[in-house]
Amino acid sequence: MNTAISLRIALVASALSAAAPAIAAPTNGSGVAWDIVEGLTTEIGPRPAGSSAEDRARDWGADKLKALGFQNVRIEEFKTLGWQRGPERASLTAPFAQPLAITALGYSVPTPKGGLKAELAYFPTLAALEAAPDGSLKGKVAFIDHAMRAAQDGSGYGPYGNVRREGPSIASRKGAAGVVIRSAGTDSHRNPHTGVTMFAKDVKPIPAGAVSNPDADLIARTAARGKPMAIDLMLMGKPFPDATSGNVIADLPGRDPSLPIIVLACHLDSWDLGTGAVDDASGCAIISAAALAAQQGGQPLRTIRVLWSGNEETGIAGGGGDDYAKRHGAERHALAMESDFGADKVWQVKFSRAPQDKALADKVNAALWPMGIVPHEGRADGGADVEAIIAAQKLAVIDLGQDGTHYFDLHHTPDDTLDKVDPAALQQNVDAWAAVLKVVANEAGPIGMVEAGPK
Amino acid sequence: MNTAISLRIALVASALSAAAPAIAAPTNGSGVAWDIVEGLTTEIGPRPAGSSAEDRARDWGADKLKALGFQNVRIEEFKTLGWQRGPERASLTAPFAQPLAITALGYSVPTPKGGLKAELAYFPTLAALEAAPDGSLKGKVAFIDHAMRAAQDGSGYGPYGNVRREGPSIASRKGAAGVVIRSAGTDSHRNPHTGVTMFAKDVKPIPAGAVSNPDADLIARTAARGKPMAIDLMLMGKPFPDATSGNVIADLPGRDPSLPIIVLACHLDSWDLGTGAVDDASGCAIISAAALAAQQGGQPLRTIRVLWSGNEETGIAGGGGDDYAKRHGAERHALAMESDFGADKVWQVKFSRAPQDKALADKVNAALWPMGIVPHEGRADGGADVEAIIAAQKLAVIDLGQDGTHYFDLHHTPDDTLDKVDPAALQQNVDAWAAVLKVVANEAGPIGMVEAGPK
Repeated sequence: MNTAISLRIALVASALSAAAPAIAAPTNGSGVAWDIVEGLTTEIGPRPAGSSAEDRARDWGADKLKALGFQNVRIEEFKTLGWQRGPERASLTAPFAQPLAITALGYSVPTPKGGLKAELAYFPTLAALEAAPDGSLKGKVAFIDHAMRAAQDGSGYGPYGNVRREGPSIASRKGAAGVVIRSAGTDSHRNPHTGVTMFAKDVKPIPAGAVSNPDADLIARTAARGKPMAIDLMLMGKPFPDATSGNVIADLPGRDPSLPIIVLACHLDSWDLGTGAVDDASGCAIISAAALAAQQGGQPLRTIRVLWSGNEETGIAGGGGDDYAKRHGAERHALAMESDFGADKVWQVKFSRAPQDKALADKVNAALWPMGIVPHEGRADGGADVEAIIAAQKLAVIDLGQDGTHYFDLHHTPDDTLDKVDPAALQQNVDAWAAVLKVVANEAGPIGMVEAGPK
Repeated sequence: MNTAISLRIALVASALSAAAPAIAAPTNGSGVAWDIVEGLTTEIGPRPAGSSAEDRARDWGADKLKALGFQNVRIEEFKTLGWQRGPERASLTAPFAQPLAITALGYSVPTPKGGLKAELAYFPTLAALEAAPDGSLKGKVAFIDHAMRAAQDGSGYGPYGNVRREGPSIASRKGAAGVVIRSAGTDSHRNPHTGVTMFAKDVKPIPAGAVSNPDADLIARTAARGKPMAIDLMLMGKPFPDATSGNVIADLPGRDPSLPIIVLACHLDSWDLGTGAVDDASGCAIISAAALAAQQGGQPLRTIRVLWSGNEETGIAGGGGDDYAKRHGAERHALAMESDFGADKVWQVKFSRAPQDKALADKVNAALWPMGIVPHEGRADGGADVEAIIAAQKLAVIDLGQDGTHYFDLHHTPDDTLDKVDPAALQQNVDAWAAVLKVVANEAGPIGMVEAGPK
């Protein structure tokens, strides 16, 4: 709830020598990272992929990165399939009349304008829906319940997120006229969680929405009473072709331009319901502030690039990560990192294709050790904005794992707003990223598979 | 999030002797109190004053009270001024385009159908608005910011609630075309808080809404940038005359019908945005379950009456408490209590007109002592549903003060749903109320001013 206008503190403190003590990290709602999150959420707000707001956000981002001293700042546009929310509402109409807090999933198709009035069939799990006989849902709306719980590493989002990703296709295959799911989220507010669903090529897209957890509780309690349920469902959102999205790319050149670069990614687009504070203005803030902070004590050997990716959220139809890999495949990359899991503190670190660089991983772990960050044996995977370039160039990856206990309270909801970002936790991210970058961007020896050769 | 169907546990355990150990209080989402909250929120849901849902809730309540063994159960209808929400939305349009989470205040009048497009004038406090010159807001929409903080005794709602109650009239006097306030609430979710506003007789009613706390933060950050702000405001809610509301009244007769009765009140109506779980299905649940629990160990001397009041929320135009006092003024009452502050645990007790009955107050305090409940020197006032009968008959009052730290996170929002009620805390309320009732309903001597005579 900090409403003070933050002042950027120049972290590009070129006057500081390598031996000087580190600047005290700002934690009171000031500093480069806070400035970016505050600015994007206040001056742009929701910026769905393919929208004019996402376009304004690219200009805002390019201006900001130039002002911060980044070089070679450019916007690279690309086309994609957009999706536009429309009016939406739903009510239980039997056995009890109750309004429902609902939102359409991305790539939902619209209901009839006056609403779809149908029997509501209750399935406690995705498996129960899968077990329903083909054709048994003809003319009905399927409700899929489930129970995603909070986890520090966010691991519930894989399996429980599948209800959102795959549930609508399964319901359509069974003949359903529409589908409603319990939000893939861990809060208990009347703010349903949106996010993309993926209609398989062989199924007819149907209207698909999510209700909030308290509304799903209500449906479950009602279903338990054993009387037939009916719903009146209106979801007018729909896809639109030929949408313009784009990436913002900027470099902090290294001392040795012949060395493969380090690429750091976040995404600039956000869902329309909130202002994209934790998803993912914070990621863009963290990588950019850390890239600058890594310049303290002297210009690193390797170029550090930031990629503020467009269209991550609906990117199944072509996102910024794919476009980046296509356009920049000829440039040699060494290592990729991505920040797209909010603004809570970094608590663990994972590596991929770095064990062969064990000495480098040891140096990274040593740099993170004073911050209490735990090395994890799991494999780093980067994320949607870097996966294409990682695959194309077999890059090394380092994941700085943030505490995700509360992330899925906010993710894809109206509640993703600035007040949810703790300035001290945001700055801890910047400090952890800067500590890693000071090691890897000053590594003269080969990093990862391309440089080191396959092992 | 308990979705189990609760089974009523017969607390009217006539087989138990007075010497038997108390039944272990159910705290797992079962029992009379839970059953009432679960039932009202699931089978009725939102039940605004004057609506058909409130009418259904009266029938539901009368059936429930009869089934629980209450006597002389009746519904007493009365007429009032209703208020019906309509479509509503708002956006900042300058200097940045941002959608706002908004809701109309009760007794707001509608904007033009296409929205009211106007300059938005920022006032950090109600005092700042009061200091604006007359006529200075002509054609503008006033935004009133403020900062209600959580307090255990809920004391912030008096002064900060005045922004909602009085702010719109003040803005209208200055010439404003509309008014938007920061919600009188303590949460940080995109769920604005509704509630009545009161247009003074000499001012023109204007459209009046509240934005959520995160949206108010956004407006404050935008205002701090110093550029003119503009809003597009559509609030279509409006009052309607000749609405039917009503009370549900039921008795547990005492052994001595000649003694003045004890009246316990809650309210049955709720705001339309949530399902009225903490405001005030919980109150109706607590008083009714406690009245039954007070029968354990033998029928009390005095009759205990429960009043499930209609139209408390918009009751400035005539609520259930007024109607009750008019109709039942000829019946002798001894003492009134009201539960209308959620479902968190009772932590303090206050008395009014009981110091003269010091021995009785001592007995009540002794009964509450094992529960850690603190006697408070402040004066009990009952609440809106009993204030008329208290004033008419100069009744004694006992207030069992609940912990309100989180109450104004939920109050008048979509988030007022069953999952917010902790069954253990709900049952603690029942236990505390029952402990008090066993003392006062068995008091043979005079209670309060009417019985004891003025002192």
